[in-house]
Amino acid sequence: MAVPTGVSEQDWAAALEGFSAVVGSEWVFTEEEHTSLYHDVYSIYQGEPEDPVVPAAVAPYTAEEVQQCVRIANQYKIPIYPISTGKNLGYGGSAPVYSGSLVLDLKRMDRILNVDVEKATVLVEPGVTFYDIVDHFERNNIPLTLDMPDPAWGSLIGNALERGMGHTYSQHGRDRWSGHCGMEVVLPTGDMIRTGPGASGSDVLWQDQKYGIGPDVHGIFTQSNYGVITKMGFWIRPAHEGFRHARVHVPRFDDIHKLVALDTRLHNMEICNGMSVMASPLYGSFGPMLFMPPVTDPEHLALLEVRNGERPDPGPLAAYGERNRLAFWWLELKFHGPNSVTQAQWDYAKDLFSREIPGCWFEEYEPLEFPLSEEVKANLNTYGHVEMVNIGIPSLHRFAMSMRNQFNPEPGVGHFWFAPMIPKTGEQILLAQEVLQKNCERLGIPLLAPYYSMMPLMWYPRAGIFLAGWNVHADPERNRRTREQYVELSQICADHGWTEYRAPAPLHDQIMRMSNGFNDHALLRFHETLKDAIDPNGILSAGRYGIWPQHLREEGQG
Amino acid sequence: MAVPTGVSEQDWAAALEGFSAVVGSEWVFTEEEHTSLYHDVYSIYQGEPEDPVVPAAVAPYTAEEVQQCVRIANQYKIPIYPISTGKNLGYGGSAPVYSGSLVLDLKRMDRILNVDVEKATVLVEPGVTFYDIVDHFERNNIPLTLDMPDPAWGSLIGNALERGMGHTYSQHGRDRWSGHCGMEVVLPTGDMIRTGPGASGSDVLWQDQKYGIGPDVHGIFTQSNYGVITKMGFWIRPAHEGFRHARVHVPRFDDIHKLVALDTRLHNMEICNGMSVMASPLYGSFGPMLFMPPVTDPEHLALLEVRNGERPDPGPLAAYGERNRLAFWWLELKFHGPNSVTQAQWDYAKDLFSREIPGCWFEEYEPLEFPLSEEVKANLNTYGHVEMVNIGIPSLHRFAMSMRNQFNPEPGVGHFWFAPMIPKTGEQILLAQEVLQKNCERLGIPLLAPYYSMMPLMWYPRAGIFLAGWNVHADPERNRRTREQYVELSQICADHGWTEYRAPAPLHDQIMRMSNGFNDHALLRFHETLKDAIDPNGILSAGRYGIWPQHLREEGQG
Repeated sequence: MAVPTGVSEQDWAAALEGFSAVVGSEWVFTEEEHTSLYHDVYSIYQGEPEDPVVPAAVAPYTAEEVQQCVRIANQYKIPIYPISTGKNLGYGGSAPVYSGSLVLDLKRMDRILNVDVEKATVLVEPGVTFYDIVDHFERNNIPLTLDMPDPAWGSLIGNALERGMGHTYSQHGRDRWSGHCGMEVVLPTGDMIRTGPGASGSDVLWQDQKYGIGPDVHGIFTQSNYGVITKMGFWIRPAHEGFRHARVHVPRFDDIHKLVALDTRLHNMEICNGMSVMASPLYGSFGPMLFMPPVTDPEHLALLEVRNGERPDPGPLAAYGERNRLAFWWLELKFHGPNSVTQAQWDYAKDLFSREIPGCWFEEYEPLEFPLSEEVKANLNTYGHVEMVNIGIPSLHRFAMSMRNQFNPEPGVGHFWFAPMIPKTGEQILLAQEVLQKNCERLGIPLLAPYYSMMPLMWYPRAGIFLAGWNVHADPERNRRTREQYVELSQICADHGWTEYRAPAPLHDQIMRMSNGFNDHALLRFHETLKDAIDPNGILSAGRYGIWPQHLREEGQG
Repeated sequence: MAVPTGVSEQDWAAALEGFSAVVGSEWVFTEEEHTSLYHDVYSIYQGEPEDPVVPAAVAPYTAEEVQQCVRIANQYKIPIYPISTGKNLGYGGSAPVYSGSLVLDLKRMDRILNVDVEKATVLVEPGVTFYDIVDHFERNNIPLTLDMPDPAWGSLIGNALERGMGHTYSQHGRDRWSGHCGMEVVLPTGDMIRTGPGASGSDVLWQDQKYGIGPDVHGIFTQSNYGVITKMGFWIRPAHEGFRHARVHVPRFDDIHKLVALDTRLHNMEICNGMSVMASPLYGSFGPMLFMPPVTDPEHLALLEVRNGERPDPGPLAAYGERNRLAFWWLELKFHGPNSVTQAQWDYAKDLFSREIPGCWFEEYEPLEFPLSEEVKANLNTYGHVEMVNIGIPSLHRFAMSMRNQFNPEPGVGHFWFAPMIPKTGEQILLAQEVLQKNCERLGIPLLAPYYSMMPLMWYPRAGIFLAGWNVHADPERNRRTREQYVELSQICADHGWTEYRAPAPLHDQIMRMSNGFNDHALLRFHETLKDAIDPNGILSAGRYGIWPQHLREEGQG
C-alpha cells in the first residue's frame, strides 16, 4: 500500500483508522484502481518521475468531517490536497502539487444549501457543479441564471477560487470571484471560520454583504493553500430577458486603438454589460470559436505570410480589405437585458463609433428573447454566432472545440494553458502579438495560428487574456522541451508586465517567482509568512501556487 | 516631553534623532501645540483618562521614508498609528486606539501619481483628498468623475480602507473598496509589497487588473492594522453624460416588500445604476436629506404617536394617505448615463412597477445633462432634490447637515456613528425598525426621529445601512451612559445578524467581539494569528478593529 510522503507506515495505519472512523471506510481510497483516478490525465510530466502520485484519497461528506480529517492530518503530519470536482484540466487536474499528498476529495459535498430568488444569490458546497445548479433551477422553475464557463462540469467554488471567468460575467461586468459573497473555511489547523457578516454566527447577511467588520480575509483563500472552502455564496443574476449582440467593423489597422478604447468606455459607462470579442478578418483570426470562415483566397493568403516573425504588412492587407469589404478589425458587443433597453444602448454605441471612427460599419443580429423556444435553442448559430455559454446555457462544446478538433494538426494526449494578461489598449495588444509571435518563432513553439491573428479570447473587466492551449505528448523529451519553452515565454511576458492569471500546477514555482519579482519577491515572502502562521504543520496543499510550508522550503523542495 | 507608551526616555531620544534624520526635524512634532491637533475632537472619552493621547507625530514625504520610520519603530518598539488625512470624524478622527502611540501622518504624501483617461483609473497617495482629485480633473480638463462621499475633504485611500461609500457608486454598483485596483503596502516590518500584477515589478497592469497570480491579499489591509498603504489605484468613471432620477410611490404598508424586491431586481439586472433612496411620507421620514417637508398637519401627527415602542398603526395612516395623496413608501431610482439610455431604463422600470404593484404612481424629474451650466449647478434642488454629491460634485453640505442643524435639538460637542447593516428586504427593514425603536425606547436612547420613520440611508449593493449619528457631550457621565447604550444596542443588532459596517475606534474591542461570535470568535483569533505573523513586534496600530499584538493581548489590554 502506498504511504503519503514523509509519513511512517505505523502512523499511516493509525491515520487510516482515524479517517475511516470519520467518513466511513467506503470513502477512504487506498487501492490503485481508485487512487489512479486522481492522477492528472493531462499531466505535463506523464511517464516521468516528477509526475505526482496519489497514495490515497478521503471523501468527507460534511464540513465537520473535513475538520476532523484535517485534524488527523495534523496529528500525523500527512500532506493533504483538497479538490472539489477535480476538473481543473489543463491546470493540473485533481493531482497534488506535492507528490504523495493525500487527496481530500470534496465531491460528496454537493449540496445547494440556499437559493434566494429575490436577491439572486446561491450558497453551495464545493462539489456542486454548474450543471447541478442549472438543473436545480430548471426543475424548480427558479428564474435565475448563472454565468457559464467554457465547460460546465466543474465546481462553481473551484472555478471562483481559481479566479476563472464565464461568458456572461457573473454580474456587473465582473469575473466569478468578484461575484462571491460569504465563505466558510476549514483552516489548516482544523478550526473553522466564516467570513463577512457570517462571522457573527448569523446567516442573515452572509450572502448579501461581502464584508463584515474588521479585515476582509476572503481573498487570501483564492489561488492559495491557506484553507479548505466548505461553503461559498454567490451573487448571480435574474433570468435573462433578452440578449443582443452586434459587431462594429473598422477599416484601418490603426483603428484598433479607438476600437478598444471605446469598448472600455462603453463598459465603464455600463452601457454594455457582456464580454466583448475582438477579431481581425484581414489577419484571418483563428476562427472556430468565432464562426469565422478560414482564409482560402490565394491573394489573401499570400498577404498573410509571416517572415522572420514580422507582422504581415498592414498596408496591402487594408487595401485588400477595402476591395473585398473585409474589416481590419471587428469588435462584437454583447448586451444582456430587456430588448427595449439594449436597443437604446446599442443605438448609443453606434452613434459613438460613427462619430469617433470614420468609415466604420455595423453588423446587427436579431436579438433573442427569453425563454428561448426549443427551435431557437437548436439553431443558435443562425443568430449571428451565439453559443450556449454566451447566454447562460451549460455546455461542453467549447471544451470539445478547444484542443481536440480539426484545426489542431496534432492533438496530443493532453493540454495545458498559457494565459498571460494584457492591458486593454490597442497599443498593448499589438505589442503582445508581436512579442509573442517573435518569441514563439525564435523558441520553436508550435502554434495553431500566428499570434498576429489572435486577440484576447477572454476578458477581465479591464485586462484581456491571450489564451492558448499547449499540447502534451506521450514523449517525455518533447514535454520537457515544451515546459522549458513555456517557462521562457512566461518570463518574457512577465518582463513586459503580462503575468499569467493562473498557471498549471506543476509550473507554479517558476511562474510565481517570475510573477512576483517586485522588491526581491516581497509578496511571495509575505505569502510564506502567512503560510507558516496559518498552517504551522505545513500539511495543506504544499507547493500550490509556489507556496511551500517551512519544512519543505528548508529542504529545498520549493 | 511626552514619550510613547512603553518606550524608555533614552530610546525615545534616539528614535527622535532617527526620525529627524529620515523626514527632517521640521516634520517631527513633539510640542503639545502640534500633537494636540491629533486629538479626536469628537472623542467619546473626552475629559476622561481613557481619552487617547498623542505624544508625537512624524510626517514622512515618501513611501521609502515610511519604510525607514517603520524600521525605527521596530528597533525601539514604538507603537505607531498611521493616518492619511485624519478626517475620520465620528469614527475616532486622527487619534490612535492605543493611547500613547506615535502618529504617522501621511498628509504630505498627496501626489496624484497617475490618471489614465482612456481606462478611467487613478493612482494616488494616502494624503490625496476627493477635492484634490476633482480639482486636478478640472484644471486639466480630464473627462473623468469620482464617486462622492458625504464630505469630500477626506482621503480617497482612507475612505476605501474603511470601506466607505459614495453617492454615485464607484462603478458598476459597488462601494469604494470594490473599486480599488492595486496597492503598495509598507508592512509592519518595514518591508514593502505591491499587490496584484504590480507584484511583478511592472506597473503595466497594476491599475487594470486586481489580481495577479497567487493569493489575493489586498482585502486584509482594510479595517485592519497589517500594513501602511502608500499607494492605491482606483477604477472610476468617465465623466457623467446625464443623470435621471424618479420616484415610485406605493399606497400600502405591505407594498414595501415588492418595492424593495423590485429595486433589487433592477440593480441586479443592471437597469439601474445609482444608489436608491427610500422613505415613507406617511411615517414622516426624517426629511432634511430627502427634501421632505416636515409633518405639520395635526391629524397626521396624531396618527404618528409611538406608544410603548409600538409601530403607529399602518391602517389609519394608509387611509389618511389615500385622502391626501401621500404614498406609504416611495423609492427613488437614480440612473447615470446618456439620457436616451436612461429613458429606456426608466420606462422599463415603470412597466415593471405598474405590473407588480397595483396603484403605484410615479414622480419624474427633468434629467440633467452634463456639463451642467452654472445656473443649473446653483439651483440643483429645483431638479427634484438633487444634491451635489449625487452627481459627483464634492461638497461638505451633507456633513454640515447631518448632526449640526436645526433638527438636532441638542447638537453636543461631537458625534459618532451607529451603522448596522440590514438585508435588503422589506421584511428585514420592518423588523429592524421595530427592534431599533423598541430598544432605543427601553434603553432611553435619544433619537432625532423614531426608527419607524427611518429607512436605510446608504446602500451597499445588497445591504442597507441604518445610519444614525449619536451625540457626544462635554459631560463624561452622560458619555459613559451613551457608550453603554451604544454597546448594548450593537449587541442586540449583532444578535439579529445586523453587524456594523464600521465602528468608532474607541469601541472596536466590543464591536469586534460581538460581530465575530461564530465558532467562539474564530475569525478574530484568525486575525490575531495573522497579526502576530505580520507584525512580530506589534508596533502598528495596536487595538485597531479589536486586533491587539500578542504582548498587549497578554497584558489584557485588548
